Amino acid sequence: MPSVHDEFWRLARGLGMTTVFGNPGSTELTFLSDFPADMRYVLGLHEGAVVAMADGFAQVSGGPVLVNLHTAPGVGNAMGALLTARDSHAPLVVTAGNQVRSMLTARHWLVNDEPTVLPRPAVKFAYEPPRAQDLPAALARAAHLAMSPPRGPVVVSMPQDDYAEQMDAEVVDDLVARTVATRAGLPAGALHELADRLAAARNPALVLGLSADAAGGRDDALALARHQHLPVYAAPSSGRSVFPSDDRLFAGYLPFGAELIHDELAGHDLVVVVGAPVFTCYPNLPSRLVPRETQLVMVSDDPDEIARAPLGDAFLADPGLALAALATELRGREESTRRLPAVKSPPAAPTPAAGDRPTAAEVFAALGPALPYRLRVTNESPSNLADFRTYVPLTFAPCGYLSTPNGGLGYGLPAGVGAAIADPDTPVLVVVGEGSLQFTGQALWTAARHRSPVVTLVIRNDEYDILKSYADFQDVGGAPGLNLPGLDTVAYARSYGVPGTRVDNGPDAVRDAVVEALRSGGPALVEAPVEASVPPLV
Amino acid sequence: MPSVHDEFWRLARGLGMTTVFGNPGSTELTFLSDFPADMRYVLGLHEGAVVAMADGFAQVSGGPVLVNLHTAPGVGNAMGALLTARDSHAPLVVTAGNQVRSMLTARHWLVNDEPTVLPRPAVKFAYEPPRAQDLPAALARAAHLAMSPPRGPVVVSMPQDDYAEQMDAEVVDDLVARTVATRAGLPAGALHELADRLAAARNPALVLGLSADAAGGRDDALALARHQHLPVYAAPSSGRSVFPSDDRLFAGYLPFGAELIHDELAGHDLVVVVGAPVFTCYPNLPSRLVPRETQLVMVSDDPDEIARAPLGDAFLADPGLALAALATELRGREESTRRLPAVKSPPAAPTPAAGDRPTAAEVFAALGPALPYRLRVTNESPSNLADFRTYVPLTFAPCGYLSTPNGGLGYGLPAGVGAAIADPDTPVLVVVGEGSLQFTGQALWTAARHRSPVVTLVIRNDEYDILKSYADFQDVGGAPGLNLPGLDTVAYARSYGVPGTRVDNGPDAVRDAVVEALRSGGPALVEAPVEASVPPLV
Repeated sequence: MPSVHDEFWRLARGLGMTTVFGNPGSTELTFLSDFPADMRYVLGLHEGAVVAMADGFAQVSGGPVLVNLHTAPGVGNAMGALLTARDSHAPLVVTAGNQVRSMLTARHWLVNDEPTVLPRPAVKFAYEPPRAQDLPAALARAAHLAMSPPRGPVVVSMPQDDYAEQMDAEVVDDLVARTVATRAGLPAGALHELADRLAAARNPALVLGLSADAAGGRDDALALARHQHLPVYAAPSSGRSVFPSDDRLFAGYLPFGAELIHDELAGHDLVVVVGAPVFTCYPNLPSRLVPRETQLVMVSDDPDEIARAPLGDAFLADPGLALAALATELRGREESTRRLPAVKSPPAAPTPAAGDRPTAAEVFAALGPALPYRLRVTNESPSNLADFRTYVPLTFAPCGYLSTPNGGLGYGLPAGVGAAIADPDTPVLVVVGEGSLQFTGQALWTAARHRSPVVTLVIRNDEYDILKSYADFQDVGGAPGLNLPGLDTVAYARSYGVPGTRVDNGPDAVRDAVVEALRSGGPALVEAPVEASVPPLV
Repeated sequence: MPSVHDEFWRLARGLGMTTVFGNPGSTELTFLSDFPADMRYVLGLHEGAVVAMADGFAQVSGGPVLVNLHTAPGVGNAMGALLTARDSHAPLVVTAGNQVRSMLTARHWLVNDEPTVLPRPAVKFAYEPPRAQDLPAALARAAHLAMSPPRGPVVVSMPQDDYAEQMDAEVVDDLVARTVATRAGLPAGALHELADRLAAARNPALVLGLSADAAGGRDDALALARHQHLPVYAAPSSGRSVFPSDDRLFAGYLPFGAELIHDELAGHDLVVVVGAPVFTCYPNLPSRLVPRETQLVMVSDDPDEIARAPLGDAFLADPGLALAALATELRGREESTRRLPAVKSPPAAPTPAAGDRPTAAEVFAALGPALPYRLRVTNESPSNLADFRTYVPLTFAPCGYLSTPNGGLGYGLPAGVGAAIADPDTPVLVVVGEGSLQFTGQALWTAARHRSPVVTLVIRNDEYDILKSYADFQDVGGAPGLNLPGLDTVAYARSYGVPGTRVDNGPDAVRDAVVEALRSGGPALVEAPVEASVPPLV
């Protein structure tokens, strides 16, 4: 009879999981021993980086991804990143070792004694098989749940003496042979109702969120918008970009405060939200989300996203399938005669900096037009996000842009590295603040080991600038801990084997350094010191 | 009426919490605004470092310590360190912001929507007050629970709009005026029984653990051991050192495998364990923990430590009070006539390295005799722990030595920084592997900002050496992810403003660099590349 070890890896292969992101400890060694030659192990130096790299990999690859963590400390260290993976809907199948079964009850060293409690509420399934022989069935259940809507991370805890046990191969034969389809579409009645409402509306708009891109809905969204002359907004605080930002129909990024959203959407008689919550706000600006005369319809594959929306008509369905079905249905009807939005004019040049350093806006304005089309971008420099959006086009697809889906920091850089490992032919530009870099900068080491085409542009303003904006918005002051003097991100990159440069001779020099680094095809870091402005939050 | 904000800080002061370790986000700004002038804020760049720094501070200060984290992502990032704080029994009162109350139910950006679930099982109390005005009462309850046996971390979630509310000052007057005593001693009957058994035993031994030191039991343990001629062992896998390692009565560090412990304790008719689990093992070497003819007695203030012990007689009581009472009780009786252990001879010189780099043992052998007495030491270079213990004396008290209490990495460096912030007159030597350094190295920045006397000695072997030892012990091979090439910890230190040196010209040069750095009184890092030996695990 084969071993649990062999059957685990055969099943992982059968489920399409052939890359493992991990940080090992003693409780993982029997699992990782005799590592199959057709599997790939990607080492990260901290679990936060490991999980976020796997997340970026999953966003690009579209399938479930194996993660291997070190018992309780490893899962504990990963919890912030796992919350983010929950909110980015990354189908991560997290495995964590545990001590040998006979040592669990007395809680010896490195025991994870509540392995199904620790990962909550970041995961929708946390399990430790009651017998070694149940590990493959637990893995299959976990992987299918991870891929079921809404996609998200799951955890299987695996006592380290399980792998040497023997088991019946037939169980795994059946598990490998199964097919599992978990994407459900709009029923015909709902589809026709929605198409009718869209076609009949006077001034409808489409709002697209993270899950629309994740479900591959971009081309259908484009077709639908063009046929129906729909202005398309990106959902507020969305972690991905689903619509080309330079397209005439792109109406912009919805603001992240209720009152601002209400005012922005005023005038639309129908708003159709696909693949996003309705709506994720950051500053507290209380208001009904849309005017009373605006009808709101949402399509989401996340029951809680639907349940917690405060208004409107909701349909539980896969966002990608819904967009495809709507596009097909409406293509059979007449093209809309609604007036198209005006063609976009280029953004106005930024106001020059007052001091020696350029502003972030100047850096982005220089850089934006010079970037290649085939490029993934991540951003985690929150205080200058508005400037970034103004000057940096986000047009590549699929998964052309990634950022934190929930405000937690430490996502952009490792997600970019994971994306580059999944698709080494598409370089990645990581825009990050020097404060954000501190959360999972260990991913630079992984980028160096894999010679990944990831260029990290550090917008360094020596403070938690966004917090100063937020404090101004709240009209409070006197908070400690908002300044970050003395961080040298070039030395930091070098400590991980990534070449770094500080560029302090103007925005054009930053642009040239970034473009040259992107051409080089390997990892690099460019630090751009900028003026520490405190932009208004809203 | 005063504000909740003012009353919170008045109560924190009344509870003796005047230092806050934190990493802020937007949800913490109303809390931190108008930060009281008599409070101190210690900024860490990642929550893992923040919590472990607070842990080290709490070990040295002995009181409850405030920690402030950023809503769900901040608590998530801290979970590994909080599990360690649970196991090091650090009384951390963790506060975490949350979105404004009206935005919680719809789970907007940065909402911690299950704030009492997320921190489990690392904390023994997790709470979000149902009204703003209940925040002080929640803080008091949390702080008293943190300090109650077994000490450990607690969490209070605080919606960010609570602080502006007004409340009745009398509530806080009463909370400040309360006294709370939570250390319980041995009842008289148990004390006399235990004293009688110790006095009557033929060859008894004392085993001391982390909680004996934390409870201030060292001097009484010394008095007791000297009066009763007791050999004293350090408990296996203990995170602190409670007995001077150069004392004649110090019998050494109990090994961390059941069979080895059994053999080591054979010959003792009575073993009294104070302030430790019975016993924490790492490699699986199944055996009864002591021979049948050995009686085992444990004194612990941790009900679960007592409940999960597999054998022996247990007393729930404060380890420090129990040691004091036993020492007093036995001082009234005759001194033991049992034969004293032989005086220790100095350790044999280490075997010289085969290659160009020295061994870790050679580095420790050179360094040990040169270290000042007034020095705290932390260690997180696990593969050479045996060599470290052989050559580096651990004699300073209180809290002279700290290491991970549960095997989770990322504790030693930040705990050392926290210890130095609590007691800047005692320098700290942090011994750490280059792999361990990656988990919470951000603490170097905090050390730089506070000019803390923390010298970090990186024992760099370019691999996860302990895992190779463990794999050999398990007789498995072929695991990926065990090598760590290309880490430059000197550049890493520089990136945080800490001066660093790589010393590759022999053990004496490492010793000189460390001693000189300790004399300088500020933070420094010394990287010592060593031979990557794979020592046998047991």
